[in-house]
Amino acid sequence: MTEPLRIAMAGLGTVGGGVLRALAERGDDLRSRAGREILLSQVCALDRGKRRPHDMAELKWAHSALDLAQSDADVVVELIGGENGTALDLIFAALNNGKHVVTANKSLLARHGADLAELAERKGVALKFEAAVAGGIPIVKALRESLVAHGVVAVRGILNGTCNFILTQMEATGRPFLEVLAEAQRMGFAEADPTLDVEGHDTAHKLALLAALAFGIRPDLGQITVEGIAKVTPEDITFARELGYRIKLLGVARQGPDGVDQRVHPAMVKLGTPLADVEGAFNAVVADAGQAGPFFLAGRGAGQAPTASAVIADVVDIARGAIGPAFGRPAKELEVTRPAPESARANAFYLRFQALDQPGVLAEIAARLARAHVSIESMIQRGRALSESVAIVMITHPCPPIAVESALKDIAASDKILGAPTLIHMEPA
Amino acid sequence: MTEPLRIAMAGLGTVGGGVLRALAERGDDLRSRAGREILLSQVCALDRGKRRPHDMAELKWAHSALDLAQSDADVVVELIGGENGTALDLIFAALNNGKHVVTANKSLLARHGADLAELAERKGVALKFEAAVAGGIPIVKALRESLVAHGVVAVRGILNGTCNFILTQMEATGRPFLEVLAEAQRMGFAEADPTLDVEGHDTAHKLALLAALAFGIRPDLGQITVEGIAKVTPEDITFARELGYRIKLLGVARQGPDGVDQRVHPAMVKLGTPLADVEGAFNAVVADAGQAGPFFLAGRGAGQAPTASAVIADVVDIARGAIGPAFGRPAKELEVTRPAPESARANAFYLRFQALDQPGVLAEIAARLARAHVSIESMIQRGRALSESVAIVMITHPCPPIAVESALKDIAASDKILGAPTLIHMEPA
Repeated sequence: MTEPLRIAMAGLGTVGGGVLRALAERGDDLRSRAGREILLSQVCALDRGKRRPHDMAELKWAHSALDLAQSDADVVVELIGGENGTALDLIFAALNNGKHVVTANKSLLARHGADLAELAERKGVALKFEAAVAGGIPIVKALRESLVAHGVVAVRGILNGTCNFILTQMEATGRPFLEVLAEAQRMGFAEADPTLDVEGHDTAHKLALLAALAFGIRPDLGQITVEGIAKVTPEDITFARELGYRIKLLGVARQGPDGVDQRVHPAMVKLGTPLADVEGAFNAVVADAGQAGPFFLAGRGAGQAPTASAVIADVVDIARGAIGPAFGRPAKELEVTRPAPESARANAFYLRFQALDQPGVLAEIAARLARAHVSIESMIQRGRALSESVAIVMITHPCPPIAVESALKDIAASDKILGAPTLIHMEPA
Repeated sequence: MTEPLRIAMAGLGTVGGGVLRALAERGDDLRSRAGREILLSQVCALDRGKRRPHDMAELKWAHSALDLAQSDADVVVELIGGENGTALDLIFAALNNGKHVVTANKSLLARHGADLAELAERKGVALKFEAAVAGGIPIVKALRESLVAHGVVAVRGILNGTCNFILTQMEATGRPFLEVLAEAQRMGFAEADPTLDVEGHDTAHKLALLAALAFGIRPDLGQITVEGIAKVTPEDITFARELGYRIKLLGVARQGPDGVDQRVHPAMVKLGTPLADVEGAFNAVVADAGQAGPFFLAGRGAGQAPTASAVIADVVDIARGAIGPAFGRPAKELEVTRPAPESARANAFYLRFQALDQPGVLAEIAARLARAHVSIESMIQRGRALSESVAIVMITHPCPPIAVESALKDIAASDKILGAPTLIHMEPA
């Protein structure tokens, strides 16, 4: 049997603990799969004294994370997090020293992924990141190695378990966003600072990586339009249901003739289609590979076991010698693309206006939409008991976002319209 | 850049044509992904003169399929089919001559997979078969390389598009099996001889491969109990719907403490769970990886593009040097397991009796079930208009199959019971 594969791990939180555990409990099977022993040669974590639910006595501790890059390890597993700072320094140094790197760090890769991939290739080592996207769902491998023959034309996914949990709870309880968020925080389903999740940035990090894998482009957060779930109301969720939809936070990347359209936003997903049924903390991805697709993958998006599972799959791949390019193609061939032009981003939209219950309101809205060449496919109008206002809900035919946005601005200026109108993308089935 | 990878392909039917086409149309991208050119060096098909929708002028034709094993190719792609005969001779000879093999041949691998895998390993070459199971869904790779850290405890799937199409049509139209089968044959969704599909054997071939990958066992058709869909009636489909279920032909493999339970049969799948929503010719697999699972994968199970896509993904893997063991572990470590003992196969069952509408019938059925220690969870009794018979439907609590089978035999002997009682597995959600 070949020499053992020595791994050094930085970060011993939830995921790191899961990796330790799986290595300890499933060592025999992993050796059989990897064709060699996998040895944890060194670890490093901020607080060495912290009680951990694993036997740490035999582990060799490094003084600092950066020391791991100089160690005798073949692979450095980076589970520190953070898009710059120590994590970036460690990955850079490890690759430079000819060590393979496995990381779960999506925000770092969304920013520096193409450059790090190029460095890895120059040094003849692997940079792997299955754990960075959708936890244990093997979507990185599927896009990198399986869906290669026909070209993926679109990839769409529910990529943030916190947001999906909140939206699922909002639908189940009828309660507003902030209440459900607070509850999710108490239950440990949302971070103390939930900004990264609920504002959609975490989804954007993951989408940038999926788009790079699917389309052969450099990950580029600057090309992604991002909108979070804070503005989704129980009322919209109820209307969605009535219209046969469910609101999900989606990351969508679509290859067009003149660029790649990449966006993160709440979307109306048709009931009965696979993404609509993904509930709670689960994640899911649909990859449309033309005649060979669609493919649908779903599973746990986060948590100790799923994420550790992804880290270990990458390590076993490396043990077997699978050290192909990080994004499936040589990094220097990854293209810098422009965002798709506005004209290629036409979509149908759900619009909700809260209006004074007066004659002429509907005519005014309709006229202003018509002026912007936005045409209406269907409409619901409903008054509230004990209220002088009515909710007017419309679904448009596909139109350029800029047209509907300009009409909304125009309509919002009317003194018959209360508050800002709501706009939600209709996701094509 | 490295030397080109030379492939020789036996069989130029639907899938072979798809491979030709993808190689021709997507050569640049495939070269970039594979890190080297992929050259089709030689082909062979039974009828060389047949008109084919591809430019074949430049292809070098082999005199016979076996010649490909002696050619200058690095990889032999076997798309001939058949579980013995030429396909087996070719694969055996190619491996023996140190050539990698890619095949879509599930029936051959279900019978000879472990031996061929061992030969491939001894020769240091790859034996790959993504296309053999569920077309373009990358379930072989996922089980072999991704779900490795936590141990898969169960794998279940809809693996035969013909059966799923027929069951979907039976539900949509209310028509009986034979009528829908005939229509499926006219439409090209079922073979002229549909035995392999509708009797469940094709599903069993695929299940044997999934079980080998998931549990590290030798594929063994002899351990799989197989029942097809011919006995499913429109009446059962209607009752299923009423009870909140849909009937699907499933392949199920479950690791127990004393063996692996492997079976193929129609099953009642709860509406709202992912497998229930897989319609028409689609395939889907649920892999339960304990705390890291469940994983759900769905996509097109057959057809030119999905299957060719799987073949090409295997070829690109080989081009990149991924030549690990065929079933994810060294072939000589694959275990011979026994079927799970009867006691481990307890399950709930749907039972339907057609009985004379006479006093005492229900009491008689109930007494005989009780004698076999089969207890009933719920029941529906319904008379038909203008009929002297009633349908009695029961769902049992979990019990050993042998208990319920013996009770049914007993009950069928009663002169108040018309025809053979129906028994369908309830699939645990």
